[in-house]
Formats: sequence, structure tokens, C-alpha cells
Amino acid sequence: MSIIDTSLPGSINLSAISSPDDIRPLTIEQLESLADALRAPLIARLAAHGGHAGPNLGFLEATIALHYVFNAPVDKIVFDVSHQTYVHKMLTGRIDAFINPERYGEVTGYTNPGESPYDIFALGHTSTSVSLATGLAKARDIKGTHENVIAVIGDGSLSGGEAFEGLDYAATLKSNFIVIVNDNQMSIAPNHGGIYENLSLLRQTNGTADCNLFRAMGFRYLYVGYGNDLRSLVKAFSEVKDSDTPIVVHINTTKGHGLPVAEKQKEAFHFSAPFNPKTGALSTPANPDNYIDIFTSHMLDRMANNPGLCVLTAGTPGAIGFYPDRREAAGSRFIDVGIAEEQAVAMASGLANAGCNPVFGVCGTFLQRAYDQLSQDLSINRNPATIVTFYGGVWGMNDMTHLGFFDVPMISNIPGILFLAPTNVEEYLAMLDWAITQRVTPVVVRTPSGKVVHAEGEVEKDYANAGYLTVEQGRGIAIIAAGDFFTIGRQAAGIMRGRGLNPTLINPRVISHLDTDTLDNLRDYQAVITLEDNTLDGGLGQKIAAYLSGSAVTVHTLGLPKAFPDRYKASDLLASCGLTPEAIASLV
Amino acid sequence: MSIIDTSLPGSINLSAISSPDDIRPLTIEQLESLADALRAPLIARLAAHGGHAGPNLGFLEATIALHYVFNAPVDKIVFDVSHQTYVHKMLTGRIDAFINPERYGEVTGYTNPGESPYDIFALGHTSTSVSLATGLAKARDIKGTHENVIAVIGDGSLSGGEAFEGLDYAATLKSNFIVIVNDNQMSIAPNHGGIYENLSLLRQTNGTADCNLFRAMGFRYLYVGYGNDLRSLVKAFSEVKDSDTPIVVHINTTKGHGLPVAEKQKEAFHFSAPFNPKTGALSTPANPDNYIDIFTSHMLDRMANNPGLCVLTAGTPGAIGFYPDRREAAGSRFIDVGIAEEQAVAMASGLANAGCNPVFGVCGTFLQRAYDQLSQDLSINRNPATIVTFYGGVWGMNDMTHLGFFDVPMISNIPGILFLAPTNVEEYLAMLDWAITQRVTPVVVRTPSGKVVHAEGEVEKDYANAGYLTVEQGRGIAIIAAGDFFTIGRQAAGIMRGRGLNPTLINPRVISHLDTDTLDNLRDYQAVITLEDNTLDGGLGQKIAAYLSGSAVTVHTLGLPKAFPDRYKASDLLASCGLTPEAIASLV
Repeated sequence: MSIIDTSLPGSINLSAISSPDDIRPLTIEQLESLADALRAPLIARLAAHGGHAGPNLGFLEATIALHYVFNAPVDKIVFDVSHQTYVHKMLTGRIDAFINPERYGEVTGYTNPGESPYDIFALGHTSTSVSLATGLAKARDIKGTHENVIAVIGDGSLSGGEAFEGLDYAATLKSNFIVIVNDNQMSIAPNHGGIYENLSLLRQTNGTADCNLFRAMGFRYLYVGYGNDLRSLVKAFSEVKDSDTPIVVHINTTKGHGLPVAEKQKEAFHFSAPFNPKTGALSTPANPDNYIDIFTSHMLDRMANNPGLCVLTAGTPGAIGFYPDRREAAGSRFIDVGIAEEQAVAMASGLANAGCNPVFGVCGTFLQRAYDQLSQDLSINRNPATIVTFYGGVWGMNDMTHLGFFDVPMISNIPGILFLAPTNVEEYLAMLDWAITQRVTPVVVRTPSGKVVHAEGEVEKDYANAGYLTVEQGRGIAIIAAGDFFTIGRQAAGIMRGRGLNPTLINPRVISHLDTDTLDNLRDYQAVITLEDNTLDGGLGQKIAAYLSGSAVTVHTLGLPKAFPDRYKASDLLASCGLTPEAIASLV
Repeated sequence: MSIIDTSLPGSINLSAISSPDDIRPLTIEQLESLADALRAPLIARLAAHGGHAGPNLGFLEATIALHYVFNAPVDKIVFDVSHQTYVHKMLTGRIDAFINPERYGEVTGYTNPGESPYDIFALGHTSTSVSLATGLAKARDIKGTHENVIAVIGDGSLSGGEAFEGLDYAATLKSNFIVIVNDNQMSIAPNHGGIYENLSLLRQTNGTADCNLFRAMGFRYLYVGYGNDLRSLVKAFSEVKDSDTPIVVHINTTKGHGLPVAEKQKEAFHFSAPFNPKTGALSTPANPDNYIDIFTSHMLDRMANNPGLCVLTAGTPGAIGFYPDRREAAGSRFIDVGIAEEQAVAMASGLANAGCNPVFGVCGTFLQRAYDQLSQDLSINRNPATIVTFYGGVWGMNDMTHLGFFDVPMISNIPGILFLAPTNVEEYLAMLDWAITQRVTPVVVRTPSGKVVHAEGEVEKDYANAGYLTVEQGRGIAIIAAGDFFTIGRQAAGIMRGRGLNPTLINPRVISHLDTDTLDNLRDYQAVITLEDNTLDGGLGQKIAAYLSGSAVTVHTLGLPKAFPDRYKASDLLASCGLTPEAIASLV
């Protein structure tokens, strides 16, 4: 069945697209009709289901051109971050998940080898495509085959160190390697960094400027000024196909192309919850009572009276509540280093060393891009920088590439970092206030990802030597419930009391260290139950169990599994781990 | 007291140097005499004590010029890696540790804030200086002071992603920021990567080429062709002092300058054990019976029959035994990506995805620069790449910036990676052979860092489902001794048997997973003792203790402390942790 509906000029039968083979016979004019035909259901799905609107709309034509010119899956296309692959999925056998609302949930928002042989890697962190693709290219050269290897990377991802390491190596390949730089003049938020001046110069000079970052790194270079124009794209990709040396194709695209609200509000529509495609209004207004806005307001308030306080982001200001108006309010003390977490941690260390009070706000899943900097640049130097993580734990993001489970084993086993897990708003703000004014240690504060909870009494102000807090003193059974699992622990304790038991309820507050005084008091208990909103392996519970080994007490460690669950439902995952108040209460 | 000995023309009284103030009154000619005077004891110390010969000799003149022109410690100089700071130490109050052999041990081989206010950071991993210095510069701008901030970085370190992230951000500062690129045309081994073509072009054109990486990133740029010439250096540094915009000063130096054997054998003399300064011969010949050479020989042997097998290094081929002759033997299947661990892990994932059998050999301490790549690029994608770590554990490197203790908590808590710890040569080779031929999982093999030990019997060939190996079956007491601590465990077991006990001795082999069948058999034991050559926190013992909680057995977890000990003596550290056979045997 042809995808061209011959009964109606220019009409496309989308449901007939089963693979890129179906689009290769088309003319450029027919490809343009295809682009229009794909855009409508793409916008409808984005509006109804949410997703990465700007990236997918901006890369629609380029995706068609890639699959028109190259011969995937023999030719290998690696998409950086892969949040711009909705059209790729539409063209590679997964059209139903975009044109049939009942099937929207059948595909993930990222490339996924489990879905299709056209998806080579599962990925969702930025700046990895070039490095991964160099492995494919080198393997091809070792095996003596001749397929094209294409790495697609957005301009925003170029600032990440791994992208640079990849480009530096790729330039030395003496064989086919094609880098498509999708330049939409935006990261998630506006771009920051010296290289963006060069991209701007290249755009202004139609790619002809002598000063050219990509040439300086050893690449041949081709510029496409109209990166949403199929004719230009097909011409450029055809030119570089089967190139026998590394080449960069720099294409100038419009983020959100074809959806006026997304073209206008590029930052808001990088990723959006379901929205009205005409007005851009969110279908469900955001809940203003959330930890992110609480954090941002508090930082702005404190910045007013603390001239050394500054807030850093690595390219995700919105994720930490610093929307444009708030960035403006913070002025030069709001620092966006671009997508460059290593830079952010090291710079925070330098700022703290020189007497400032830096706060690096970051999604937990992205902080793992700076493990070495946490250890070497920051902790060995004992510089009192504060890192605040967001979207940690089971209620954070739930794509397998964006999980917030692993921060506790990662951070709490590095010497010299104090890792604090607040259980409510007041404790959160007190920990932040202490962290940003103390001068003795790097501190990580884990923003709760569950519902906003308030303290019932006074909270500690000084966390320099804070131990575990015994909230309710009982006997025989103790529940040590960390961070946003404290609420679950409290509920479990309530059930136990209803059954005539008298549990002790403890908020550990510090999840990187043991409070041995508190733990020693539990040695003659019957049971200690630890609850932590992170993978059990390497976490707090195992430390407690090891410390209490040899005493009479049985330690039940509860937490999340060492696994990469994808698009899980939090309540299901919690239940499968025994992390419900009822299941916990029934342990003893 | 002047440092110029007026009784003898051109003579310098080194012991009178107490701070850079002492050299600022000198003329250029006197600075040249100073360089000569410093070089002789520097070479004598390097020859007697070992150290980073090439980097320090090559940067001698530049260090003098920096301290002559700039006003440290008010002006802030951050040295990348900081292994080139011997002359800096000689000029900043620590001359005795270089001219008095009895005091050689008084300073570390890296900058150390505990030693001197001229040392701003403790650092030893590469590519961090620019990022750290951006924090100092931003803090200066926030505080409104006007000191110079200078980041020194070697050409070899430029390939690391963090350096790029730092440069990209630094270029956007609208204030003083000086980057000294010390280009000696070498990393530890020869440089690899596209940017080195550009450095070469800049050298060839005396800095005048239009195609200029640093300008493309947004810096002003100054080139110094004779980077070991004091007059040129002083002129250039004076020119950029108090610059009010970011600028790169690219200086062309000779690694090992002034010591013929080091100039000639640049790779061997990057870091050398004590040597004869005339012949270059090592004072104590290397022991050929070591795990590194065993690894390299085995890889070369297997490469002969496995066309998909390739070995990767991130700029440290010598550290994994791939000296120039062996690299030549391996041909194009030996891949040096430069100092770029993120690239190495991601590329290995790509190679494995495309059917090759990549082996990334890396010092354990440097693998932590690729945490996110281990998790995202490799493990989520289940690509069967092999990573082999070196210098892990207590007998690895012992500078606080180069510890091999943290790999086990770091790696073994990432889902989906099989982490193997061999206890002897035959097991090591069997694990390598299995890892490089299996197609199911990423594997990390931890090269033992203790003495070479041989197996007493047959070793397992298939580690796909290998559990813990019970080497000696006893009753009541079990010792689970991992990796190169197995030898300690065996000795402890021997002592116990001499005392009439009958311990079970277990080699866990897999340190990322629990063998619950084996552990369940220990539930009615009196004691289980776990021994692991890594920090206890987040390691194997705590997992075992948590698993066995609730049974009668007491688990004694022994391992290394969560700390950054500096230049420790292994036997002392082991004794302080109770990790001697006698202390272990006395636990029960």
C-alpha cells in the first residue's frame, strides 16, 4: 500500500508507513506533504499526552530527510538525548502510537532498542551520541563494512564534556562519520557558553566564517541555513552520504517549528505537560504548593541579604524553579553554565573556596554526571558548597534513563560530603539555611519529591553535628524512615500502635552517616525497620544493618530495587518493594 | 638575605628563597641563573625520589615567570593535575624539601592547601583547573576585588570533558581570566584527538592561523613559541596581567627540558621511579612478574585469534602495560582516546553494541570520571563491554587524589554491571577470557594490586552465573575474602585452624551481587567475617550483613575507611582497620 493517497492530490496515508522504505520513493514535494501530514497528529499527541514539543517539531523535516537519504537500520543513526525522536518513531514502524490516541502509551519518549531495530541505544542524558557513535564507526572499520554512521546532536548538548570528548576523538577517524548539529539556538533554556558565540557567527556568515569551532577540531564542515527546509536538507545529507572522512553538518532549525505557541515560548515548550495547542495554556494548572517553588522563593529571599549567595544550574533553570522572571530577580548571581554538570560542581567548589555561598540546584539523575567532581574537586577540598537535588526518589522522573534512585549510594559513600534528607518544608528550609551559611563541609540536600508536608514542631537549626531525630519514643520496634519516606514510616507506626505495639519512630536526617548513639539504644530491640527512597544497595539501611550485626535486633531494610524500571507507576513499585504502611506494619 | 650570592657572579642562594617576593627584584639574566640553579637539585631529587620528571622540568621557566609577573597568593594560580608544581613549591616556602635529601618526603607531589597558602586546591585528576578557577573568578567579581585568576593546563589535559566545559564557560566571563596552555606536544603518552591537529597548526604558524580553537571558543589568544625562554614568558605574562577579558596564552614548551634522557624518552619520563639521571636506567629494575604485564601479554595473545577484540585506554597506555612496542603489535585495535574516560566508556559501549569485544583498561581512580557513562551509556544498554581496572585497593596508588578504594561502592551499586574480583592469576585470566567472549552483560574485572598469586587448582571458566566459591568447607565460622584480600583471609583461616577452629573460607568472586544460596548456609554460623579491599561503606560486607540480619550469625565487616588518607603506608592502614591475619583470627 502506498502512503500517497492517489485519490486526493498531496494527501498522505500515514497509517501505511511501516518503515523508511515507504518514504524513499517520494518526491521532494511529496516529502513536504508528508511533513505537513506528520505535524498535525504530532501536535495533537503532544497537546494531549505532553512531551518534548519544541525538539520534536523543530527536527521533523530533518528526521524525514535523514530517513529519506540514509538507509537505516543498516546506516546507523544515534540521536543525542533522543527526546527528539517522535518523528523517527513515526517513520520506523510505530506510527500507530502517534495517530491513535488509545495507543499513545505504547512507545517511550526516547529511543529504545526494545521497541525497534532502528533504535540503537536507550539514552536520555545529553551529550552522549557522538561518543557512542564512534564505537559503531570503529567497529565498522574493524569489520570492514561500509555503512554510514550518523550522530545527531543538538546545540544545547554540545556544552557537555562528553560531547567534546567524542568530537575530539571522532575527528581523528579516517573514515565515514557524520555529525548533524541541530542548532535551534536553544538549550532547554537559552544557551550559555563561548561556543555559542561561534555558532551564532557561523549562522550569520552562512557558515563561511574562518573562525569555525568544528574545523578547528578537525572536521570538514557543511552549513544548512534552512534546517526546516526539506530540499536543503536532502541536498546536504546526500552530499555527505558515504563521506570517507568525518564531517559536521550544521543545520539551523526553529525549535517548535509549525506550532506558534511553541515557537514563541521556546523554553516553556521544550517539554510540556498536556496543553491547549492554540493558547499554550496547560490543561491542568500546575500546583503552586511544591518544593521547587518553595526552594526558589527561599533562595531569592536569602539572596537579598546574603551578597555571597549564588545559585548555579547546568542548563536546567526551569527544573529548579528559576523561570525567566526569577532569573532576572537573581541577576548575575544566578549562574547557568549550560549543560555541564562537571563545570557546575567544580565552579561551586571554587566559589566556596573564595568565600561565596554557592548553591548548585540539579536533577538527581544528572548529578551523576559529576561523580568525580563531587569527590575530587569538591570533597577532598572540603569547600562548603551546597548542592540541592531535585526529582529524587520514587516520585521523581520515571523514565529508565532519568531515575532518581541512585543518588544516595553514589553520594553517601564518598568521604566528606554531608548528605541531608529533609522530611518536611520547615526542615528543608532549615537545612538550606544552615548549609548556605556554614563554612566547614560540602553539603547535599535532597529535595523531597513527594507531596508537601509541614513540620509539627520546631526543627533543628544547626546540622553540623545533627544526629538522628527520635520523633516518637517507643520500645522494642523502631522505624527509621528517611526523607520523603518519613510519611510512610509515620503511617506504619500508626497502624502498629493500633495493634497495641509501641514503635519508636526516627527521622535520620543525615543519610550519609550513622548516628551510633541512637543506634546503640536499639541493640536490644526486637526489630529495626529502615525505609529509604533510593536503591537499597549501598544505601543507609545496609550500613545500619552492618552496624547492628551481632546484637539481638533484626534489621529489615526497605527501599527501591537495584534496577532500571521504565515508566513505572510509583504506587506499584512501592507495593512491590513492601513499601506500604500496611506491609511495613505487618513485618513485626 | 638576598638570594643572589654577590660574592660569585650568577650564583644563587636557593635556601634563601622563602616566597616569590624574593625573586621579583631579579633581572631577566638573574632569573635565567635562577632557572639553572633550580634545575640541578630538581633533577637530583627526581632521580633519587622519583616523580613527574618531564612535566616539572618542562614547566620550570614558566613557573618562575608566573611568580615573577603575578602576585600570588593574592593573584590566584590553579595548576591542572598539579604534578608540575615542584618548582612552584620551591619558590613558595618549600625549598628545603627539594635541596635537602633528608627532607624530600616533607611535601606531596601535588598542590596541597595544607602545605601552603599558595596552593589553592588539592588536586590530582586532570582537566579541572579551568573549572575550579572560574569559581574563583566569579567570586572575585561578586566581591568586587581585582586579583588575576590564572588557570594552568597542559595540552594533554585539554581532551578531558571538564576542561572543555570550563573553557566554554570561562570564555563568557567579562573580566580577568587567564588560561596558560602548556603545550609540550604530549599527554602522558603522545596526544590523540582532533584538537591536537589545531595545536600543531598554531605552533607551525607561530600562533597566526585563522583556524584557532581558542578563538573559536571565544577567547583572546597569545602565542609564545619559546615556552622555556624566560624573556619571552615574562613579556607574555606581563602583557596579559590585569587583562579584563578572558585570554589564552599558548606556550610551546619542551617536556623534560634540560635533562637529556627525559627530553628523549618523553613517555617513560612523564613519571618515573628513581633513576640514573645520566643513563635514564631505573635504580631498581621493575619486577616483571606483575599483573599489568600479565594483562597486556594476555590481551595481545587473544587479539591474535579474535579479530573483534580491541583494547582502549584514556591517555594512560603505560599504566595498563601497553608500552610503544606493544601498541605497535596491537595495531589499530589499540585505541587511545586521550584523557577522556567518558569517551572511552561510551565508545566501548558502541563497539560492543556493534559486535566487537572492547576492553577498556583504566586506573580505578580515573574510572570514577565516567560514572554516568557506566550507568547510562553502558549498563542500561546491556552492551557486553569489558572494563579492567588497575591500581585498585590498598596497594594501588596512595596519594589522596589517586586512591583505588572507591570503585567497589561506585560500580557495584549500579544496576546491571557484573563486577568480578579475581584472587589469583589463573582466575584473573579466566575471568578476562569469559568477559571478552560473552555477549550478555557489561563486566568490570578488578586487577589485583597485591603480589602475584597462583591458583592451587582448576578455576571456573564461565562466570555468567558464578556464585561464591567455597574454597575450604568448615563449620561455625566463615571468612568471605574478596579479591586480593583473599590471601589475608586464607592466612587468618590458617591461624584459626592452629587454634582448633574450623573456618569456612569463601572466595566471593562476584562482588556486585549476593550468592544467597551460599549465604543461607551460613545462617546458623557463629560468625561471618567479610574482607574487602575497598571502603566498607557501600561495599559487599554491608550487603551481606543486611542479608543475614535476623539470623543467629554475627557479621564482622572489615575493609578500608571512608576517608582520603594521603601517602599512607599500606601495612599501617591495614593494621588500623584490623586487616591483619592475626587481628582477623582474634575476632572470634
